[in-house]
Amino acid sequence: MVFAARKINAARVNQRLAHLAQFGRTGEGGITRFALTAEEKAATDAVAAWMAEAGLEVRRDAAGNLFGRLPGRRQGPAVLTGSHLDSVPNGGNFDGPLGVLGALEAVQSMREQGAVPELPIEVVSFMGEEGSRFPWGLMGSSFLNGTFPCDQLAAMKDRQGISLEEALRQYGARPEAVHSAAVPAGRYAAYVEMHIEQAGVLESHNLPVGIVTGIAGMRQLRAVIRGRAEHAGACPMELRRDPMPAAAELVLAAERLARESDPATRATVGFLQASPGAANVIPAQVELTLDIRDLDGARRDACVERVRAALAEICRRRGLEGELVVEHTSPPVRCHPELISTMAAAARSLGREPFQLPSGAVHDAANVAALCPVGMIFVRSRGGLSHCPEEYTSPEDVAAGTELLAETLWRIAAVEWERWPEP
Amino acid sequence: MVFAARKINAARVNQRLAHLAQFGRTGEGGITRFALTAEEKAATDAVAAWMAEAGLEVRRDAAGNLFGRLPGRRQGPAVLTGSHLDSVPNGGNFDGPLGVLGALEAVQSMREQGAVPELPIEVVSFMGEEGSRFPWGLMGSSFLNGTFPCDQLAAMKDRQGISLEEALRQYGARPEAVHSAAVPAGRYAAYVEMHIEQAGVLESHNLPVGIVTGIAGMRQLRAVIRGRAEHAGACPMELRRDPMPAAAELVLAAERLARESDPATRATVGFLQASPGAANVIPAQVELTLDIRDLDGARRDACVERVRAALAEICRRRGLEGELVVEHTSPPVRCHPELISTMAAAARSLGREPFQLPSGAVHDAANVAALCPVGMIFVRSRGGLSHCPEEYTSPEDVAAGTELLAETLWRIAAVEWERWPEP
Repeated sequence: MVFAARKINAARVNQRLAHLAQFGRTGEGGITRFALTAEEKAATDAVAAWMAEAGLEVRRDAAGNLFGRLPGRRQGPAVLTGSHLDSVPNGGNFDGPLGVLGALEAVQSMREQGAVPELPIEVVSFMGEEGSRFPWGLMGSSFLNGTFPCDQLAAMKDRQGISLEEALRQYGARPEAVHSAAVPAGRYAAYVEMHIEQAGVLESHNLPVGIVTGIAGMRQLRAVIRGRAEHAGACPMELRRDPMPAAAELVLAAERLARESDPATRATVGFLQASPGAANVIPAQVELTLDIRDLDGARRDACVERVRAALAEICRRRGLEGELVVEHTSPPVRCHPELISTMAAAARSLGREPFQLPSGAVHDAANVAALCPVGMIFVRSRGGLSHCPEEYTSPEDVAAGTELLAETLWRIAAVEWERWPEP
Repeated sequence: MVFAARKINAARVNQRLAHLAQFGRTGEGGITRFALTAEEKAATDAVAAWMAEAGLEVRRDAAGNLFGRLPGRRQGPAVLTGSHLDSVPNGGNFDGPLGVLGALEAVQSMREQGAVPELPIEVVSFMGEEGSRFPWGLMGSSFLNGTFPCDQLAAMKDRQGISLEEALRQYGARPEAVHSAAVPAGRYAAYVEMHIEQAGVLESHNLPVGIVTGIAGMRQLRAVIRGRAEHAGACPMELRRDPMPAAAELVLAAERLARESDPATRATVGFLQASPGAANVIPAQVELTLDIRDLDGARRDACVERVRAALAEICRRRGLEGELVVEHTSPPVRCHPELISTMAAAARSLGREPFQLPSGAVHDAANVAALCPVGMIFVRSRGGLSHCPEEYTSPEDVAAGTELLAETLWRIAAVEWERWPEP
């Protein structure tokens, strides 16, 4: 059986990327496509139609994940590949869709070439990866690996007060049956996800693609600082219990502590809200998010604890109440060494340098790692930018990434997975 | 002609305060009653009905201000008295309504006692004092004194994108005729406003009422800091152009500079918003408000310039773009010495200590000062709190303030204003 990864239809991938960009396009030229919205549904429906057109067996699970299956020559666990279609607010058009459409192209090209892989290959589009709407990232893949707290469907709400249960129902998914979306370990032989790099390492090495060694572990926290609302003009500075300068100190402490930790440690405050939020009122409360990541889980947790101690000290000194709640944690994940070496061989066969790099961003692969070995391909992102309208990957780099993914999938489907050692 | 200020119906004032509290009540027990909303309209309509019931000549101007006039024994400029009915988000029930209802009680009591003042007395309820909806505080009184930029009605929008023009029309005011709300200097003999203190000075002196010496000048600014949106996990700390820590530095600089300036200088950041505002995205932009006040205008402006220099230095050091725009300025205002001494005599006649204090908060009186001499009465606010659900003035203190206001108005209406020197 022969498959030529160079014969994939790269133009089709780029056309489909451009087509999806219409769903949730913002005035600034970006994409706002949140989990379980009409925008995510429209993009997912388009992909489902392309899957059907490619001759795949199309299926949706109860949690809104979409699958398209190409049967293999033999029975056995499928190779899973894909990514997600949702976005951050005013984000870009490549973060997510590239991995879904690249995977679809790989299997569509196999079918068009009459090349049947050894094992089945399943393309997946995971629902709600970004966590921009509900306070839970990697949502679809956490239903798949059984770690989503299914008893929270009614309680978990978006900022408009819509529960996850209601959103799933509106989407056409089946909240009453979300348990059925969980699959057992062994169902999949391996998972390979292609994604834009979202940083400038590949660009600085002048390389279109890279092989990921591991994924940083993330801890998302919510800090609430409570003070006393007072009139902005009437209350003297020395009598205030103002949570805003306290929040400012916390933002700067998080930045300093991440810098002092390690080059791989990152801390970000992406959201901050004062209540009541008027120019002439000292806030009663300030709420902010903290996103702290590291490739080393223990080092990350140490950074979180230093941030917690800083908050306690700031609040004590200023006479305020502070609270820091962990909202989401994902452990660091190592990509499987056999997958990495298979990818490296695939890259060399295509004349590409098998450059390896870590991922500072979390991906669905981190969740799928609970089910099977995982690997990731990074594709160069111009300027290292992502999560913004300027996010861009050239058609040539899309082609290079898709070729490497297709060659990798073809090879992985032929591997004797039963013989692999646990990593 | 005899008028007994002690015979005012204090219970009626307190009952009316309680009645108004229903309009815009929040789940936390506070009041959200923004300019030109259904809530402000409902409260204003209730006051208009009480004015009519009291036998006043009721009139509304094109900008949504409400007036109720008690004729005097002689022709001549009226004495104006009142305050506002709108609130900050989740604010209190006394900031504003106390001055409107106290003024109404004073003239209603005169009428019930058959006491006709020398000059006419007009009770006013100014539209939109707080500036919580549109970026303009003291709105109604700035239409009255002719300083509102009437060509901005269509351009000035609230956070929902509703223009001031549209809001005025929805309210039932006449945006096409707002120029007619401006009155010439000389129309009014004097303006007296009763208001809660909004700080703890009276409470610390164990006094129910005080006589205001002057009003701090306010400068409201909007700072925008622009950086580069990037992935929170993927972008290393040293490559970021993150506006959030820069905003944090600005918040702390404003606090420090106000403290270093003078006990009368106050700087507040009551609103801060990161865009796009997701936990896992380094913001592209942070926008925040700065409210800087002082009884001394030059000292306030020097503080503003130091904040501006701090912003420039922060942005230069961090590779960001910063902007600081003055959105609203009000000059410091001195209360008229003749009014202060008339109030002091009125207080002594009621057995009250004529305690004098400055106002750190801006009031409509600051705008009316462009038209005539102004004076203010402060009433004790429990714990110095205001702009929050806990804002509270006891029924006894409401009575003490209303008595002093009534006695003051009666005396001022009898003054020969033509002989007063310019302050």
